[in-house]
Amino acid sequence: MADSFTTADHLAQVLAAYSKSDNPRYNELAQAAIRHLHAFVEETGLTREEWFAGISWLVATGQKSDDKRNEFILASDTLGVSMLVEMTNHKAAGGTEPTVFGPFHLDGAPERERGASIADKDYGAPPLLFTGTICSTDGTPIAGARLDVWQAAPNLCYDVQDPDMPPMNYRGVFRSAEDGTYAFVTTRPPAYQIPGDGPAGAMLRAMNRHNWRPGHTHVVVEAPGYKTVITHVFDAASDYLDSDAVFGVRDSLIVDMSGEQVTFDFALEPVDA
Amino acid sequence: MADSFTTADHLAQVLAAYSKSDNPRYNELAQAAIRHLHAFVEETGLTREEWFAGISWLVATGQKSDDKRNEFILASDTLGVSMLVEMTNHKAAGGTEPTVFGPFHLDGAPERERGASIADKDYGAPPLLFTGTICSTDGTPIAGARLDVWQAAPNLCYDVQDPDMPPMNYRGVFRSAEDGTYAFVTTRPPAYQIPGDGPAGAMLRAMNRHNWRPGHTHVVVEAPGYKTVITHVFDAASDYLDSDAVFGVRDSLIVDMSGEQVTFDFALEPVDA
Repeated sequence: MADSFTTADHLAQVLAAYSKSDNPRYNELAQAAIRHLHAFVEETGLTREEWFAGISWLVATGQKSDDKRNEFILASDTLGVSMLVEMTNHKAAGGTEPTVFGPFHLDGAPERERGASIADKDYGAPPLLFTGTICSTDGTPIAGARLDVWQAAPNLCYDVQDPDMPPMNYRGVFRSAEDGTYAFVTTRPPAYQIPGDGPAGAMLRAMNRHNWRPGHTHVVVEAPGYKTVITHVFDAASDYLDSDAVFGVRDSLIVDMSGEQVTFDFALEPVDA
Repeated sequence: MADSFTTADHLAQVLAAYSKSDNPRYNELAQAAIRHLHAFVEETGLTREEWFAGISWLVATGQKSDDKRNEFILASDTLGVSMLVEMTNHKAAGGTEPTVFGPFHLDGAPERERGASIADKDYGAPPLLFTGTICSTDGTPIAGARLDVWQAAPNLCYDVQDPDMPPMNYRGVFRSAEDGTYAFVTTRPPAYQIPGDGPAGAMLRAMNRHNWRPGHTHVVVEAPGYKTVITHVFDAASDYLDSDAVFGVRDSLIVDMSGEQVTFDFALEPVDA
């Protein structure tokens, strides 16, 4: 009788047990997750020791997370999963290309006046005027669009990583004007290392990957009636554009930041497009 | 330029980045994990909100874990993954069928004399003599085999779940005699609920699954030169044999526990088989 019950029988039993939610989407997601989890185990011939190492890595990743750091987002980012979610949520063409949200966004960034600086602490870096227009994909300027902007300071840290930084340093919310234009002041965003002291960092080292990201400014653009754009604008002169630890670089998002001003226009797709 | 970079291009880029470990097995596991993670996202059209719900569930599952409870093992068990790992680590035929290890094993259970009881607290349940022979798959008795035994007490709890229980209650390590026989005393193992107060329990409820396991005694049998057997022995009269929350039941592991004695023989495969 031993081994008469095959792994295919087992999979069928598990899938049947996860087909009874009242929410059909739960059933769909559970079925797909179970099929892929089981196929991963079978294809790799995962050993007990490897399974337990994986379990331990998952526990450690959860326990490294807190209200200021989400190590599972970092893991998702470094495995290219976060970027893929953005790509699959952005299938219609024509708008600004999306990229990863990242683990460092904070709700409640201060609304700042047009043209104001997002830097609340001076690092001696020259100011960089960041400006452009927010339009619909048909070219119509969008007034009152909301830009949520954040980036690393010149010391390579986000505010949440540096207790000596004022809270909300290098963060700000801006609105586009009647003609769709926006403007704020920042400094050139530095290349920086994503946190390497947790399980995601350990994974990168085990895989001979570095943990650098090329210099970029995060922007989320929202306007009623349009799909939200979650993206970055990258510095064309930065290192690591071809080996971003989180696979977030797109050619259309790279601009010259070597001067006093950078111009980047955003195109938003109407919701019903 | 937008959207010219496809999800297939993205997957190829991520796979290339995870092909450079000095450990070829790491590359193999990473490639398989990435292929399945990305396929899951694409096939389901996973939304940002669903992705973030998943991330939050993973964080909560890690944070629910501690030195006495591993919520990721519970999740793995309830998704049928743990059972599959046992099945794929047990491909050669002939030995006792394996089942899940479960989250409640403790290292350091006391060595007890042949025939001793594993119960250190009296619940009024009648004693059950558990005995049998440990043999090689060719029928040769194995002397000095190590049996590590644990089960829930009649109050439906393992010792680690009940602060009023003596530590190591219903746990014990035994050795087989020269003729391969073993013997210990226990009480009939009750059906019980796996912990439902964490993210794994929330998942079960969302999927309309119960969290009961049929009554069983855990046994790990080890002997030099043989593959370790990790299994349970189930009570034939228990509820939930056909709907075990962790998919661990196998017909060959079900025995009559309604009398004063239960007999179960273990067959171990030689390592070089």
